[in-house]
Amino acid sequence: MKIIQKEISISSKPRGFHLITNEILNRVPEIKDIKKGIAHIFIKHTSASLTINENADPTVRSDMEKYFNICVPEEADYFEHTLEGTDDMTSHIKATIIGNSIIVPIKNGFFNFGTWQGIYLCEHRNYSSNRNLVITIIGE
Amino acid sequence: MKIIQKEISISSKPRGFHLITNEILNRVPEIKDIKKGIAHIFIKHTSASLTINENADPTVRSDMEKYFNICVPEEADYFEHTLEGTDDMTSHIKATIIGNSIIVPIKNGFFNFGTWQGIYLCEHRNYSSNRNLVITIIGE
Amino acid sequence: MKIIQKEISISSKPRGFHLITNEILNRVPEIKDIKKGIAHIFIKHTSASLTINENADPTVRSDMEKYFNICVPEEADYFEHTLEGTDDMTSHIKATIIGNSIIVPIKNGFFNFGTWQGIYLCEHRNYSSNRNLVITIIGE
Repeated sequence: MKIIQKEISISSKPRGFHLITNEILNRVPEIKDIKKGIAHIFIKHTSASLTINENADPTVRSDMEKYFNICVPEEADYFEHTLEGTDDMTSHIKATIIGNSIIVPIKNGFFNFGTWQGIYLCEHRNYSSNRNLVITIIGE
Repeated sequence: MKIIQKEISISSKPRGFHLITNEILNRVPEIKDIKKGIAHIFIKHTSASLTINENADPTVRSDMEKYFNICVPEEADYFEHTLEGTDDMTSHIKATIIGNSIIVPIKNGFFNFGTWQGIYLCEHRNYSSNRNLVITIIGE
Repeated sequence: MKIIQKEISISSKPRGFHLITNEILNRVPEIKDIKKGIAHIFIKHTSASLTINENADPTVRSDMEKYFNICVPEEADYFEHTLEGTDDMTSHIKATIIGNSIIVPIKNGFFNFGTWQGIYLCEHRNYSSNRNLVITIIGE
């Protein structure tokens, strides 16, 4: 059994939900050598998040963005942490609801996903920079 | 240290929150041989989810179902991804809020749970099929 | 590669969101010996939760508390599981939304966090007791 850890930077993306499965597979070719294991994918930020959801229809991602904007409304008047704008505190809350890391099983060199699963980077800020991920693979 | 990975299928369940701790323990007897470790339990679907919560009172599970139906309302008129019905997009959203995997510590052959903890399979669709789980155990 | 598992008890905290990064680092000095790995931190309760979020401005934590009280309102009249008070069922729901465990990458003896990340213990009950955590470190 071995452990591999690397950091990758995902280029800045517009606010919303983005499929990044292929980008991760391309940037972490070490996954191909793992017969069974897990990959922990961690985002080093508190205003963007990671989730696994439907990988085919882009309206799932746009509906997600619409839903979470209603679920965590920027016009709420009780937030104090708004120094960087109305999307500041709401981004932190979305990150906690959605989560800052995922774990995917690996089988025979690939993510052991269901047919319709993919990895989303969820960008909650209006203007973001690159997002850094730490990927830790444990397996054999 | 060793790694064990297996897939199990959980028979179709009605929409709602269901305790599946014993079903997992029965289907994955390998847990009994682990003195210390972790079990990663991953659902290969995007319209059902996994969580850990109260294992005794069934009204916790029915209150969960009531709450999430209000939190993610099917009557919202802004969803576009509704080809499979009003429970389509809402199921994807619930899956992202609740999460598609859990990790449980293992100690001396059992899940190292608190007294009141159990594993829930959360079925968000009105009519579902079997749900496939990938269970990865890392330990010694 | 080795695995270390230990349980620690976090002293009772008032309802709200609390930074516990340093408390964990102090109580689990074994992290200092890990060059690369992961730490799984699991809470053995169903009415408190763990998340990772902004580690500097205390208004992030108070805004979180305000938001989740609105998101999961105690005055909802449809909850049945309220034997222990109006904060009973709502605490279980918050625990499922926020999550009962986190995984943090370890690099060179420290959590490999972004600059602004810290670990929160989220106490959802009005009157809580100590909260027990199981910490499992896998690494080398």
